[in-house]
Amino acid sequence: MPPSAKIDKVSEFTTHRLSVYLRCLATLEAEGFETTSSKELAARFNLNSAQIRKDLAYFGQFGVRGVGYPVAHLKQQIIGILGLDSHHNVCIVGGGNLGMALAEYDGFREHGFPIVAVFDNSPAKIGTTSRNGVPIYDFRNLNAITESLKIEMAVVAVPAEAARKVCEAIFDAGIRTILNFAPVRLLARPGTKVQSIDLSISLEGLSFFLSNNAPEAGQEPG
Amino acid sequence: MPPSAKIDKVSEFTTHRLSVYLRCLATLEAEGFETTSSKELAARFNLNSAQIRKDLAYFGQFGVRGVGYPVAHLKQQIIGILGLDSHHNVCIVGGGNLGMALAEYDGFREHGFPIVAVFDNSPAKIGTTSRNGVPIYDFRNLNAITESLKIEMAVVAVPAEAARKVCEAIFDAGIRTILNFAPVRLLARPGTKVQSIDLSISLEGLSFFLSNNAPEAGQEPG
Repeated sequence: MPPSAKIDKVSEFTTHRLSVYLRCLATLEAEGFETTSSKELAARFNLNSAQIRKDLAYFGQFGVRGVGYPVAHLKQQIIGILGLDSHHNVCIVGGGNLGMALAEYDGFREHGFPIVAVFDNSPAKIGTTSRNGVPIYDFRNLNAITESLKIEMAVVAVPAEAARKVCEAIFDAGIRTILNFAPVRLLARPGTKVQSIDLSISLEGLSFFLSNNAPEAGQEPG
Repeated sequence: MPPSAKIDKVSEFTTHRLSVYLRCLATLEAEGFETTSSKELAARFNLNSAQIRKDLAYFGQFGVRGVGYPVAHLKQQIIGILGLDSHHNVCIVGGGNLGMALAEYDGFREHGFPIVAVFDNSPAKIGTTSRNGVPIYDFRNLNAITESLKIEMAVVAVPAEAARKVCEAIFDAGIRTILNFAPVRLLARPGTKVQSIDLSISLEGLSFFLSNNAPEAGQEPG
């Protein structure tokens, strides 16, 4: 199977796990670890060691039998696999509460995803900036600004009823990846990708926990 | 192995997949399907059929050989497993852009997680409501309001530097599950669970896509 065909089959679950491994390796590196193993990663970070070996083997031969994985090297390899060795400029579409909160979210910039623009259609907002200085542009200028600021990703933070139209305009502007917060299913075009965030799913995981872990009688507080 | 020991070992990845299956089954049910199979679910929703069979077999025997899974029944079973057959009242801690956006996010209520309170410490906000009518309370009254409104889950939407202290106060108030948006690692106590949202991880999945899917030359627009 040629590498490109293999890569096409990589699921969102797999890239999500690679991102998790990356954070675990960064933690180990900061603590001075030079090598690690799938067993150690699994025990320390509550992961599945067989899954780790399988995921990593899919992309190459990173470990040395009897020695384990070299932490810094493996971290760099995952950074390369995920395409994080270069920055990707991001815009937010929708300057409401959610859009402005995302524009001000430091985690994006820290992970190599600088927010360079917010787009809105409200005259009261256009021409102003977020509290951390991201300019708010007229959504009608999306094409020109996407080109001048080299925007590669768009975060959709508009109401559900506007999301589909906004999504088409984003693809028309040449942006090929969308992170969607609107509670609507957006369809990707060939050569594009839409990742939708369903915040309810996280709450369902917590609901599972509540259902299966009754409060212990006489449990020590604190 | 007793059921409770089994349940303890269920990972966040598993409950996440159950939530995904639930959404797929709801779609099939709305379209009038009475039965389905792991193969059909996998093909239709871009999932892994072996994983589906493994995940479901872990919780019981839901399929009939040669017939498949009964859609409505399996959906109800997953609702029961995830504890979604009763509502869980949720509060938001932090009335900034993110907190207010989350308070107004319809998806939570639709999935059985009504937002019943926002807590903040700003006198200008306390006593007002979100645009959709959720009251904003003084964070100092967390304990009393948690009890009177029967709050079971807290969403942490405060700045990183405040998150740890807020987390302790939430556990002290008797709330056992936290969905954390602050870019800080929060430690659960025994009998509690913290699920952190790292929005950068979703962007990393899109970065992987960009790295492995160059724009096609001569690709048809639209």
